[in-house]
Amino acid sequence: MMTISDAGNDLEAARSAFYHRLKDRNMSALWTVLHDLVPRAPRRDQMAASWAYADIRRTLMEAGELITAKEAERRALILENPAWPGESRITPTLYAAIQLVLPGDVAPAHRHTQSALRFVLEGSGAFTAVNGERTFMERGDFVITPNWAWHDHGNDSDVPMIWLDGLDIPLVSFMNVGFSEPGEADRQAVTKPAQDAPARFGSGLLPVDYEASAYSTSPIFNYPYARSRAALEQLRVADVYDACHGIKQKYVHPATGDFAMPTIATFLQLLPRDFDTHPYRSTDSTVFVVVEGRGHSMIGDQRFDWGPMICLCCPPGQR
Amino acid sequence: MMTISDAGNDLEAARSAFYHRLKDRNMSALWTVLHDLVPRAPRRDQMAASWAYADIRRTLMEAGELITAKEAERRALILENPAWPGESRITPTLYAAIQLVLPGDVAPAHRHTQSALRFVLEGSGAFTAVNGERTFMERGDFVITPNWAWHDHGNDSDVPMIWLDGLDIPLVSFMNVGFSEPGEADRQAVTKPAQDAPARFGSGLLPVDYEASAYSTSPIFNYPYARSRAALEQLRVADVYDACHGIKQKYVHPATGDFAMPTIATFLQLLPRDFDTHPYRSTDSTVFVVVEGRGHSMIGDQRFDWGPMICLCCPPGQR
Amino acid sequence: MMTISDAGNDLEAARSAFYHRLKDRNMSALWTVLHDLVPRAPRRDQMAASWAYADIRRTLMEAGELITAKEAERRALILENPAWPGESRITPTLYAAIQLVLPGDVAPAHRHTQSALRFVLEGSGAFTAVNGERTFMERGDFVITPNWAWHDHGNDSDVPMIWLDGLDIPLVSFMNVGFSEPGEADRQAVTKPAQDAPARFGSGLLPVDYEASAYSTSPIFNYPYARSRAALEQLRVADVYDACHGIKQKYVHPATGDFAMPTIATFLQLLPRDFDTHPYRSTDSTVFVVVEGRGHSMIGDQRFDWGPMICLCCPPGQR
Amino acid sequence: MMTISDAGNDLEAARSAFYHRLKDRNMSALWTVLHDLVPRAPRRDQMAASWAYADIRRTLMEAGELITAKEAERRALILENPAWPGESRITPTLYAAIQLVLPGDVAPAHRHTQSALRFVLEGSGAFTAVNGERTFMERGDFVITPNWAWHDHGNDSDVPMIWLDGLDIPLVSFMNVGFSEPGEADRQAVTKPAQDAPARFGSGLLPVDYEASAYSTSPIFNYPYARSRAALEQLRVADVYDACHGIKQKYVHPATGDFAMPTIATFLQLLPRDFDTHPYRSTDSTVFVVVEGRGHSMIGDQRFDWGPMICLCCPPGQR
Ligand SMILES: [Fe+2]
Ligand SMILES: [Fe+2]
Ligand SMILES: [Fe+2]
Ligand SMILES: [Fe+2]
Repeated sequence: MMTISDAGNDLEAARSAFYHRLKDRNMSALWTVLHDLVPRAPRRDQMAASWAYADIRRTLMEAGELITAKEAERRALILENPAWPGESRITPTLYAAIQLVLPGDVAPAHRHTQSALRFVLEGSGAFTAVNGERTFMERGDFVITPNWAWHDHGNDSDVPMIWLDGLDIPLVSFMNVGFSEPGEADRQAVTKPAQDAPARFGSGLLPVDYEASAYSTSPIFNYPYARSRAALEQLRVADVYDACHGIKQKYVHPATGDFAMPTIATFLQLLPRDFDTHPYRSTDSTVFVVVEGRGHSMIGDQRFDWGPMICLCCPPGQR
Repeated sequence: MMTISDAGNDLEAARSAFYHRLKDRNMSALWTVLHDLVPRAPRRDQMAASWAYADIRRTLMEAGELITAKEAERRALILENPAWPGESRITPTLYAAIQLVLPGDVAPAHRHTQSALRFVLEGSGAFTAVNGERTFMERGDFVITPNWAWHDHGNDSDVPMIWLDGLDIPLVSFMNVGFSEPGEADRQAVTKPAQDAPARFGSGLLPVDYEASAYSTSPIFNYPYARSRAALEQLRVADVYDACHGIKQKYVHPATGDFAMPTIATFLQLLPRDFDTHPYRSTDSTVFVVVEGRGHSMIGDQRFDWGPMICLCCPPGQR
Repeated sequence: MMTISDAGNDLEAARSAFYHRLKDRNMSALWTVLHDLVPRAPRRDQMAASWAYADIRRTLMEAGELITAKEAERRALILENPAWPGESRITPTLYAAIQLVLPGDVAPAHRHTQSALRFVLEGSGAFTAVNGERTFMERGDFVITPNWAWHDHGNDSDVPMIWLDGLDIPLVSFMNVGFSEPGEADRQAVTKPAQDAPARFGSGLLPVDYEASAYSTSPIFNYPYARSRAALEQLRVADVYDACHGIKQKYVHPATGDFAMPTIATFLQLLPRDFDTHPYRSTDSTVFVVVEGRGHSMIGDQRFDWGPMICLCCPPGQR
Repeated sequence: MMTISDAGNDLEAARSAFYHRLKDRNMSALWTVLHDLVPRAPRRDQMAASWAYADIRRTLMEAGELITAKEAERRALILENPAWPGESRITPTLYAAIQLVLPGDVAPAHRHTQSALRFVLEGSGAFTAVNGERTFMERGDFVITPNWAWHDHGNDSDVPMIWLDGLDIPLVSFMNVGFSEPGEADRQAVTKPAQDAPARFGSGLLPVDYEASAYSTSPIFNYPYARSRAALEQLRVADVYDACHGIKQKYVHPATGDFAMPTIATFLQLLPRDFDTHPYRSTDSTVFVVVEGRGHSMIGDQRFDWGPMICLCCPPGQR
């Protein structure tokens, strides 16, 4: 059985010398950092914040004057959690940005291990191509470019398109498993008719020999707002709402029922008029984008008023 | 080490006496039945057969004169595999029948451990109610009444409705796990708006807290033909076909990607014009219903010509 | 809207004529058989029965004098449910038999789509070979020969070995998917050292790249009684028992946690001394084999006393 | 269509001003950081390193003189990747430390959302208690304390015990989901007999009503070295080795076949004498602990010689 010297000062000095020696051996003493490593509760550094769409739009249009889509590869402005300026993170694991694709723009083909989603804020008729198929995008559409899938965007319409990009960049960076590759041409070859994926995977049917692997991304890469919105409207009529969430549906992989993307959970939520939700909290942090209507959220003691196309990030906390 | 008497006759007599004694002990000798129990290959007793829709329809209308839907509980004519008359089986595990629901008919509410499907052959606007929700049916719709779910049918339209019923009755009978219960009223209470299930489960979204159990039946209980047909038409355009199956999609459970029903695999298949399939064989037996078009199938040496609404059963064999 | 003639006799005659005509068209009227096809509750024809081991053994030894293992292919006596003589079924889906392998016997290699289990009642040191590996068997061992796996048995010990065979023969017959093939030689080649499977799959570890397919059979093909019994003894000490089952553990597939065999659920159960179980019922029927101890079961109103190696079959009912 | 001013300097100035304004709006320009966020390949900053056991042991014994287990809560020295001093990480996602539990020590009960493993390097008979059950530990044993499970350690033997701690601390910190709670007493109540978990879950059997949830930790919390080592020895005899891995088995959850822990993949690996492995690379980084034997590894151009109880961390690279 060990005994520890009572001579406080000597002990402190001995410990201090010991800690120094540890460094040279690529070691450190757990007990000096234990409560940082294994805290009683998560840190509260993350902040809530919102970005008004009018501001976002004006700033984006300035960007449109300053850089071409092709030069930028992707002309996007990153939304940063105010707690972590310069870290390109809106939550611990997520990156969010607003991308502008002007008429005639080409966002050239590339692929990467990061998974990406788009949520369309404005515009009509620009396209995203994935795996040889183009999908034409409308406001509110939720579009996926799965990890390691070739993708490019173009806008052959005559109006700007603006969308929210969501990626798992911080998570992939943390794991240090980021790989990427530029395409050989700006635009990938189109090998499938438009609407092939929704017909093949999104109509209650699946190819007879189709098998999804675990953790795979949905083969449906556009969940159109018109269809999702109609489904929520139907549930609004059914008139049974969750106290905290109102009507909240998750976007799912048609062959697993799991979330549509392995690293980012996505939802479409409808709060009926005059519906007040109960407060709740969660270890998830969330990025909200308002599509229609007006209202406000309480996050802790902060009030956030919102209207169409506002972006709001919410740390683990109260609402 | 045993030795067996060479005296053939004595041995035969001894064996025969032994077999007799076994019976009294609720035993029998494996070696006398081994090759029946563990055959080299499946029996070939099952037969291919087809039922012309004109005949089916005429016979059904006669039935409509002879018995009310309510008296019959379900006014349906069973299609029997010609190999097994009186056994109410079209394949080893499946029951198939053609049901007639006349305007004003009520097929009263009941439930049972057997799973049932309907495939609509004629009519428009009759309904099936499942779990408090009514779905109105059109030609080609695939409708499910899951095991132990209350269901009733009614026809408030002004035309007869005729559909194919498919059930796992032979399988449930074999397992001896059939239970059933009549409803308290002919029609169950309607507690949900029409189109609730497709909005909740069939639009690429699922309720945020929904979890399917293993071997469960799809919560979507009507896969409308209009939507399924449009999906197959889209795949026809894509112009890549399976040599044996043309375009063959399976109806799936939206939260598992598994077959829509646990005991009956269901598909919708499109053979492009002038497409000749390669022969194939399978241990499954199959019931085909033709919705559109004309053609023929070779099953072994037999030729079956088909046109709209013909029903065809195919044993394990060649096509 | 149809109306049905009130003329009772005429109606009966018309219906009768109609039923006759149906037969020629390979049809029948559902309403004449509905309550057989969809009964209110399962049939009660299946019976409980027991086979005393002394009787089984004496009869088997007679069989040993009357036929060689090789001539019989498998020298086994089928236990038949008294409700269904000549049907080689002990429950609706299961076949059970008692097999004798005498010193020097060879039960030649074959394979079949039926899944088989052995539960050893007497003897020590006979072997079963599966997929190139031999396992040597002791009393109480639970041994599996998966569907379509080559298997042969031999007894190079100097005592007879007797085991219970359990197979899914009735189920496979019902599905009509029975295939079998004799081996090229009586004994398959031994390509792996004994105890390879338990080391590879049964020690809390799995090969780094191993993946089980759905509905697969456990790659562990001998669950030795010594080990299973010790586990149950340990749970007996823990002293928390299920009211209906005492201590009941299921044999599992090491890579799925599912039952060890896809078509037959197997368990090892220990009833502590003086433990009285609550009655229960189930839609399963069960075959019990007693390994140690004495007791009795009530099945409905019938009492069955049991001791070592008795075999008991229990229909869906009370205990 | 936008056009970009040719006036290079003006453009640069305009861009620079724009980037400044972005900061005030919690934004930044993607194209200025794109190649850091989405790199062509992972960073190469992580380093390989080894810690000799003699050094580790001497340093630990010094720690034993400087602090009590109770004061330290856990008396452990963290192994830090030389690339990231002060970050308590040996790989991007993992924490590793060497813990000393002296005779009489009490490492008091607590619980936390981090998952922990122990791999015993020296000693015999100290215990870890998890969920009311104590397991007594020997050299080479792999012991798990699942996330949010109460655990405490004690050493009632008369020799020091030293083990490697592996935790997912960096991952949990990154996600910011760390919670912890101290126990009410130093030692949790013992409510189960020793060896209950291996009997209940680790003997090829599972409780009849047991169901594992997804991402759950194995209920077996000690995988004893004696058993695992014997299994690998058996596979060594079988004499079929993987070119890159020799014999490599993963520790698994008995009810899912998945890795024993949801966030840390663990293996036991045997390289037969004189076996040279092929080089391989992986996006995983790995911590190796040598239990028996001597050899060396090439990691990139660096050679690491190893013998018993050396700890070696390997970045994504060549071996
Ligand atoms: Fe991208
Ligand atoms: Fe029914
Ligand atoms: Fe066999
Ligand atoms: Fe801990």
